Amino acid sequence: MTIRLGENQYGKAETHVVRVTKRGRGGAVQEAKHEIKDMTVTVMLAGDFEAVHLTGDNRAVVPTDTQKNAVFALAKEDVGEIEEFGLRLGRHFLSEYAPVRRARIAIAEQPWTRIQAGGGPHPHAFEHAGAERRTTTVTCVRDAEWVVSGLSDLTLLKTTGSEFWGYAKDRYTTLPETHDRVLATAVEARWRYLDTDVDWADARIESRRLMIETFANKHSLSLQQTLYAMGEAVLEARPEIGEVRFSMPNKHHFVVDLEPFGLENDNEVFYAADRPYGLIEGTVVRDDVAPADQAW
Amino acid sequence: MTIRLGENQYGKAETHVVRVTKRGRGGAVQEAKHEIKDMTVTVMLAGDFEAVHLTGDNRAVVPTDTQKNAVFALAKEDVGEIEEFGLRLGRHFLSEYAPVRRARIAIAEQPWTRIQAGGGPHPHAFEHAGAERRTTTVTCVRDAEWVVSGLSDLTLLKTTGSEFWGYAKDRYTTLPETHDRVLATAVEARWRYLDTDVDWADARIESRRLMIETFANKHSLSLQQTLYAMGEAVLEARPEIGEVRFSMPNKHHFVVDLEPFGLENDNEVFYAADRPYGLIEGTVVRDDVAPADQAW
Amino acid sequence: MTIRLGENQYGKAETHVVRVTKRGRGGAVQEAKHEIKDMTVTVMLAGDFEAVHLTGDNRAVVPTDTQKNAVFALAKEDVGEIEEFGLRLGRHFLSEYAPVRRARIAIAEQPWTRIQAGGGPHPHAFEHAGAERRTTTVTCVRDAEWVVSGLSDLTLLKTTGSEFWGYAKDRYTTLPETHDRVLATAVEARWRYLDTDVDWADARIESRRLMIETFANKHSLSLQQTLYAMGEAVLEARPEIGEVRFSMPNKHHFVVDLEPFGLENDNEVFYAADRPYGLIEGTVVRDDVAPADQAW
Amino acid sequence: MTIRLGENQYGKAETHVVRVTKRGRGGAVQEAKHEIKDMTVTVMLAGDFEAVHLTGDNRAVVPTDTQKNAVFALAKEDVGEIEEFGLRLGRHFLSEYAPVRRARIAIAEQPWTRIQAGGGPHPHAFEHAGAERRTTTVTCVRDAEWVVSGLSDLTLLKTTGSEFWGYAKDRYTTLPETHDRVLATAVEARWRYLDTDVDWADARIESRRLMIETFANKHSLSLQQTLYAMGEAVLEARPEIGEVRFSMPNKHHFVVDLEPFGLENDNEVFYAADRPYGLIEGTVVRDDVAPADQAW
Repeated sequence: MTIRLGENQYGKAETHVVRVTKRGRGGAVQEAKHEIKDMTVTVMLAGDFEAVHLTGDNRAVVPTDTQKNAVFALAKEDVGEIEEFGLRLGRHFLSEYAPVRRARIAIAEQPWTRIQAGGGPHPHAFEHAGAERRTTTVTCVRDAEWVVSGLSDLTLLKTTGSEFWGYAKDRYTTLPETHDRVLATAVEARWRYLDTDVDWADARIESRRLMIETFANKHSLSLQQTLYAMGEAVLEARPEIGEVRFSMPNKHHFVVDLEPFGLENDNEVFYAADRPYGLIEGTVVRDDVAPADQAW
Repeated sequence: MTIRLGENQYGKAETHVVRVTKRGRGGAVQEAKHEIKDMTVTVMLAGDFEAVHLTGDNRAVVPTDTQKNAVFALAKEDVGEIEEFGLRLGRHFLSEYAPVRRARIAIAEQPWTRIQAGGGPHPHAFEHAGAERRTTTVTCVRDAEWVVSGLSDLTLLKTTGSEFWGYAKDRYTTLPETHDRVLATAVEARWRYLDTDVDWADARIESRRLMIETFANKHSLSLQQTLYAMGEAVLEARPEIGEVRFSMPNKHHFVVDLEPFGLENDNEVFYAADRPYGLIEGTVVRDDVAPADQAW
Repeated sequence: MTIRLGENQYGKAETHVVRVTKRGRGGAVQEAKHEIKDMTVTVMLAGDFEAVHLTGDNRAVVPTDTQKNAVFALAKEDVGEIEEFGLRLGRHFLSEYAPVRRARIAIAEQPWTRIQAGGGPHPHAFEHAGAERRTTTVTCVRDAEWVVSGLSDLTLLKTTGSEFWGYAKDRYTTLPETHDRVLATAVEARWRYLDTDVDWADARIESRRLMIETFANKHSLSLQQTLYAMGEAVLEARPEIGEVRFSMPNKHHFVVDLEPFGLENDNEVFYAADRPYGLIEGTVVRDDVAPADQAW
Repeated sequence: MTIRLGENQYGKAETHVVRVTKRGRGGAVQEAKHEIKDMTVTVMLAGDFEAVHLTGDNRAVVPTDTQKNAVFALAKEDVGEIEEFGLRLGRHFLSEYAPVRRARIAIAEQPWTRIQAGGGPHPHAFEHAGAERRTTTVTCVRDAEWVVSGLSDLTLLKTTGSEFWGYAKDRYTTLPETHDRVLATAVEARWRYLDTDVDWADARIESRRLMIETFANKHSLSLQQTLYAMGEAVLEARPEIGEVRFSMPNKHHFVVDLEPFGLENDNEVFYAADRPYGLIEGTVVRDDVAPADQAW
């Protein structure tokens, strides 16, 4: 029997860096218009790291503290979109350190909205835009790069236009069929770009818009059908994207039984349950695109 | 030595009720325009509840399950603003149950935004408006009622227009003074109304706007000064409000030292820390208004 | 109309300090037996802080950063029990800074257990003892001091020996009475000491033991009755404690209806619900003890 | 261009079921000794589910509500260890529903400890044993079954016996080398069994003990070295286990600089940071064992 090291990676997780960019009208700093980029960055490196595991020999190890410093230092340059910043970071670790064979950079961006004050946008005051996050995972190896971008915690709900019936039944079935229900979910979507020469902001804004509009407009016979339609809408419109993966909880809204109180409930009063919840995970892909499991 | 029961209250916490209201154009349900009200409701009752504590005699006890049912049943009527719904619930428990001497209803509302789809607002599809919550605490006793409303998780940040210097110094002082820093906080504000005949929606919208604009526009020498100015702005503009209480963490954004890497950092790259954090709590009140500690 | 500053306090919240104490057998450090004290400390100061609120004049302000430094510096001395450390901190802020009129120190301690390795206790390796926290809130003013200690997240459950029946009924009642149910709660208890000359460790260990044993042994007709009995047990046994306050959620375990599947369920299979939950809050006090609202 | 459905699965997540088993001494129920099993169960099914995605045809779909019912119904039988319960559930879904080609059951168990009351163990009263969870993931397909078990949130710390030096250095390195540091982590470990005929309880208890003892006793030159040694200890002792995967955050404990206050800090006072944190992920495997990626 021999025991050996299998798959492994390590890095600094969740460095929370906020980058302020001042676009001046000359003059005093405080007259300039500021931009803000709020990112939580995770670096994970894989490569020739057998020695440190087997004997504690750290010669090949870039300390995670150094990785954190690199995140801050590279953020000093204009960061651009998170995909661009992820690529810069991934290339940095790959090119600087010989033992590193794969650098993976995951970024979650908290968007901020400019405060409206006194009738116009404020030059340097902001509020959180919401719970939704913009995400990207950039993976760099010696001869390839992949960018998977996405969003998380996009909570959507429709109060009608959703049905659920005609499903398999057995001795454990008690759920009544319905032709009108509330459908709610918190979308986590990730889409894989086919190369790295992309208008990241445009692709993100449009993909997000298409998913939301499809959720709203598509009459739903199941959350699976809605999920597939959302992915299809993105792939049909965005040739730079090859694949979309979704994880969508079914956030159950149960019609409260008001009959004991002599009241009707025509899909008006709902109990929003936390757990358990349905969980629907699915991938929508182009047929003519090579798989890339390393990208995720 | 005698041991006795002191202050006590009980109730059902965090009933998550979603109320859908359909404002029809006649015809099919799905052509109607839907409204959504998403509330997490906590009921707490106080009164003559000695027996249950001392002997387990439940005769005076309204089960928390019944309270939950009442929340759902009363939500069947048009709920209106959360302050109105809170008042209806508080009055219900007080008038229905003789042993109840104080009913306190706390509601947190998750706002939803109508989805824009195909160029216009969708009639029945929504997305979460963000992490911010609208709150109210309604307290009803036999001869009085108080409404305290508020908001929580309103995260604000300004990238300049904030200083901190001239503070007390001693042997434990290491913080350098600054004339330009990032100021960030997650506002929890609660304001007490002076009566219950109020345009709740208007008062909320305007109070919120005034707090946000003050945060943005007021040049800050300390978070305390900003807090006070925010409360003052509300009290000056809204005669129906007698008092504002704030709890505002100082969400530190530390300037990263980039000198070891040969880089300057002119307030551009920040490390956003989680803990520890400053915490500023303060009340701004009208001088001519009687205190009402029972309201909070 | 005059607007003025009301109640206010500020400080550094959640400084997470870990203090290692090495009790040596002489010789190499690594042969010594180590002790660990893991505390999250919140300092809140009140006093003459009008100027900073009204004009941003910081002369009276001890920066929260300095407070954090003081926490670390004072932890260099042997910290002892959290009540002792809280008192040292409270006295420090009160005596060092003239504008401070009240210093409140809240500490949550994470207990660690020594790892058993190779048949005996390890001298310097530990594991988390659980989710339960030891808490204290020490309040110091110029002429008085109060210590309120407690525990949180002590989750208890009994599978029988609990009933609930004989309660008030009305049109919203649907809950069936029961003479045998699961009773579960996550105890948050806080007890007020009558002075500061106390064997803190002994008082804590015994109070905790009495509450847990009472929960287990007392046949329960309601969670209120259990709560009261837990407080009574502490007050009867511990003369140094004058008052106990509880906040105890009723963590509902619902008997699952297995009849549709042709199965009986004799209190064997439960669905453990998250929300909503009952919430029971109560105080048990000695009759002959003066109230001390400032202590909480 | 053709768009198609890729990988997908769905199910009911986080059904929180508590199973009470009464082992009687005859006589009254309340004299029996009760056992408690507290499980949060997630079911995920994959198979022939194209129709529901493409057209909303639900004929092949077992509703997640039915899955939840099955969890409750099967829990009515004696559940045994979570691995056994997972296998029973997985086999149930696979054998009952033709379209299902893979059933994956993930269970997290909250352990409870019997309360000691009046000098002995109480027959039916319990307290949470801590934050650590026992986990299992059982995967069943038509011709194979895999069991991966594990634990999460096992927080360990050693106050000495850990070094970190000799690592790669570059222009972004600022971390000083150390020959004595605090090492702390929250272990998430998962180990793959080589078949399903296992003494689950014994394997779990021993694997856990070996990991904890190795963490305590192994002098550490890096967290990677500790991780590998922990996995090696399990594989050497437990022939039924083929592979162990770890995810171990480096929970940094930074030595506080007390020099500005005229104090020495000989690894006594630490600041326990939340974020960012190092993250070490690694696999330890037997050389002679076939990989089984489907199991995870």
